[in-house]
Amino acid sequence: MEEDILYHFSLGTKTHNLPEMFGDIKFVCVGGSANRMKSFAQFIHKELALPGNSDDILDICEGTDRYCMYKVGPVLSISHGMGVPSISIMLHELIKLLHHAQCRDVVLFRLGTSGGVGLPAGTVVITDKAVDYSFQAKFEQVVLGKVIIRSTELDEGVSSELLKYSKEIPNLPTVIGNTMCTHDFYEGQGRLDGALCSFSHEEKLEYLRKAYDAGVRNIEMESTVFAAMCKVCGIKAAVICVALLNRFEGDQITSSHDVLVEYQQRPQILVSYFIKKRLGLIA
Amino acid sequence: MEEDILYHFSLGTKTHNLPEMFGDIKFVCVGGSANRMKSFAQFIHKELALPGNSDDILDICEGTDRYCMYKVGPVLSISHGMGVPSISIMLHELIKLLHHAQCRDVVLFRLGTSGGVGLPAGTVVITDKAVDYSFQAKFEQVVLGKVIIRSTELDEGVSSELLKYSKEIPNLPTVIGNTMCTHDFYEGQGRLDGALCSFSHEEKLEYLRKAYDAGVRNIEMESTVFAAMCKVCGIKAAVICVALLNRFEGDQITSSHDVLVEYQQRPQILVSYFIKKRLGLIA
Repeated sequence: MEEDILYHFSLGTKTHNLPEMFGDIKFVCVGGSANRMKSFAQFIHKELALPGNSDDILDICEGTDRYCMYKVGPVLSISHGMGVPSISIMLHELIKLLHHAQCRDVVLFRLGTSGGVGLPAGTVVITDKAVDYSFQAKFEQVVLGKVIIRSTELDEGVSSELLKYSKEIPNLPTVIGNTMCTHDFYEGQGRLDGALCSFSHEEKLEYLRKAYDAGVRNIEMESTVFAAMCKVCGIKAAVICVALLNRFEGDQITSSHDVLVEYQQRPQILVSYFIKKRLGLIA
Repeated sequence: MEEDILYHFSLGTKTHNLPEMFGDIKFVCVGGSANRMKSFAQFIHKELALPGNSDDILDICEGTDRYCMYKVGPVLSISHGMGVPSISIMLHELIKLLHHAQCRDVVLFRLGTSGGVGLPAGTVVITDKAVDYSFQAKFEQVVLGKVIIRSTELDEGVSSELLKYSKEIPNLPTVIGNTMCTHDFYEGQGRLDGALCSFSHEEKLEYLRKAYDAGVRNIEMESTVFAAMCKVCGIKAAVICVALLNRFEGDQITSSHDVLVEYQQRPQILVSYFIKKRLGLIA
């Protein structure tokens, strides 16, 4: 290819010097919400004690509103929207970006929110296996009308390192468990409060109990394709999501804005600690 | 339910007077990009010659960055992000909102962008049937771990009315055809330029030819769940997408920014004409 346009980033190999812009990236952190990934960029800027004002960090993808992207030293922070299709577009273009920029040994983290399964709200879940609605560690990808199966194994080393660090940080309740990835927020996750609902409270609880017995500790909407694409491309990756509620107790997210903001900072604090350890900023 | 929190809209039945805010809505227009749906709100404000400055229209969902929402007289304009999961969350909360607000006889439009199949760039496609990767007019929804099938039939009356009006508007090449909805932008749509690609140029063309023979005229990422949910809920709905390129000729979107902006206005112009006809503003 003479030129590669990363359309949803509004970047390209002819219009941008990608090695110069991104060549020193060692950590990529992605999450659903644009505001949250901007806050994370500002947070990591302070944590790494980098020069300049953290309020001045610019959105590299300002030419589009599909995703936002911030670079802070060796860390890239990108939003991916909600659901497997949205994050998959971002990952295709991110992996091409890292390739064009000649980055090496990058670690990729998804920092997200989720529904907890048998866990109190505020618990951080590091994903052991990303599983589908039938609790299988696989991702079904359609290629030219045919379904192919990809493994959703994540990097065990990065996960255990994260779990170890979580114990060194106060007020950061953390577990390792399976993460179920669904393609919707209501019927697929057994919520009773969607516009459509064809099942009873008891049937919902039975499904959640089966999930718990299969090792599922939280439910979100991106982990399987994230794990699958990173594995195929040989990128070390981890998924760290906070539980915003315990799904055995309800469906609606009723905590106050301030409490939710504090919960959402927990995966950020853990990943920031990991990055500082790797950079030798913490002994 | 004592209270219903529409979490991804940052609205709720206790915190907001939904009948007062939304009771007069007759048309809901949704599209992927937040900027585009803001532009559409400003455009329809001018088209309907409503009082006030169109630059002052506020985002009703400003408490969250998941979606944006603008109200202009009887028209609601909402962004839905990319892909089936993202639009499905929005639709659940929109349908609950319309219910709580006691709206009646609302028509719902998706105004989108797409890849054309055998059509020149700039052609507007009104969706006849929304089909999946195997060209079937069905949507697979997982409910508590079981796959159920929903029909993706759209409203024939609204589609033919739109096609009729398209002929009354200059420079608006429009066809009716099937729209294929995929769960990714690269492998699922047969693009050769993703981070992963396991097929040849010839295999890609063969798949696109099969799609064309099955009546597919464009490919996007939301139409099946949009059609399925509207049908189950008894809402009249249509999908109107412009083709940004002809996929037989390439994969990358290489047109200039200005040309793409003009293309993206075409579905807006057609839907605005429909709304003005229905409101009796055009004879």
